[in-house]
Amino acid sequence: MAELSLLLFLLAFFPFIPVTVTASHCSTNGLPIVRDISKLPQDSYGIPGLSHMTVAGSLMHGMKEVEIWLETLAPGARTPIHRHSCEEVFVVIKGGGTLYLASHTHLETPGKPEEFPIFSNSTFHIPIDDVHQVWNTNEKEDLQVLVIISRPPVKVFIYEDWLMPHTAAKLKFPIFWDEQCYQTTLKNEL
Amino acid sequence: MAELSLLLFLLAFFPFIPVTVTASHCSTNGLPIVRDISKLPQDSYGIPGLSHMTVAGSLMHGMKEVEIWLETLAPGARTPIHRHSCEEVFVVIKGGGTLYLASHTHLETPGKPEEFPIFSNSTFHIPIDDVHQVWNTNEKEDLQVLVIISRPPVKVFIYEDWLMPHTAAKLKFPIFWDEQCYQTTLKNEL
Repeated sequence: MAELSLLLFLLAFFPFIPVTVTASHCSTNGLPIVRDISKLPQDSYGIPGLSHMTVAGSLMHGMKEVEIWLETLAPGARTPIHRHSCEEVFVVIKGGGTLYLASHTHLETPGKPEEFPIFSNSTFHIPIDDVHQVWNTNEKEDLQVLVIISRPPVKVFIYEDWLMPHTAAKLKFPIFWDEQCYQTTLKNEL
Repeated sequence: MAELSLLLFLLAFFPFIPVTVTASHCSTNGLPIVRDISKLPQDSYGIPGLSHMTVAGSLMHGMKEVEIWLETLAPGARTPIHRHSCEEVFVVIKGGGTLYLASHTHLETPGKPEEFPIFSNSTFHIPIDDVHQVWNTNEKEDLQVLVIISRPPVKVFIYEDWLMPHTAAKLKFPIFWDEQCYQTTLKNEL
């Protein structure tokens, strides 16, 4: 209650404070060493069927070499067709779906991808720069995955389809869930 | 049955074959893209109370930048006091215990570590080179963790106690579960 009063006082007299308050989860200082995953921020970031949580992040928690996400894809939901210059490992917690993977980065376009069924308690990794898509092709059950990437924060190149040239893929940086912390970092540096 | 006959035939006439046969899980070629975690090799590697599985490994699966382990520590079991020049993230799947963490790498010895309770569905990360130990201090329940490290294969420096100088900590490389694949790789290169 005392904290709430203080917050209201600060908001009344220091209207520039909200940026810091709403973005407090972006701070790498003062974070507890051990964090309760169930209390971490979770959001769709405007993407239908997605629930994303950054378990251990570069911009959010000060990670330097690895980043961990917990993501749930509703039935029918899918990632964009994309690539990134980092390694990525998936651990399927529950549900199933299909991995589409095009490994021919030496060609001009990804081309027709190989299809692999993925299932609960399975693991797979995406080699650096391979174009891929994960799709919850299961009609009834959510697909939940733990995702591990190297070289955070991730720089993703998105394809409209599998025949789009590699050079036309569009960079999405920062990635949706890094936007707020990325902007906060910039603001704090001004 | 035909495969078994072939194996027996090979063993009888080519006694050097067993190295290749027993170490077949070390091969990075011909591995399925999607792997069933429940069918991966699991072992204590002679360490009481440990069950270790390499979900995605450098020597075992050709990972270059990250490596993932699934480990279970029985009640009372603990890791050695150790450090490594890589980032490490833990996701506690079930059970609980205590993280001991000494962050003063600029001193001559780790010194008395800070203690943090860890619990089911919690996450924590070990900064590069910080000396630490994870202990299942829960008397009844197993502690199961998913462990993510960068810069595989891991090079671990082990301390006998918290007052041992950093310079006296002993390098254990390859780590217990990497020994077989490390030796196989060397043999294959001869």
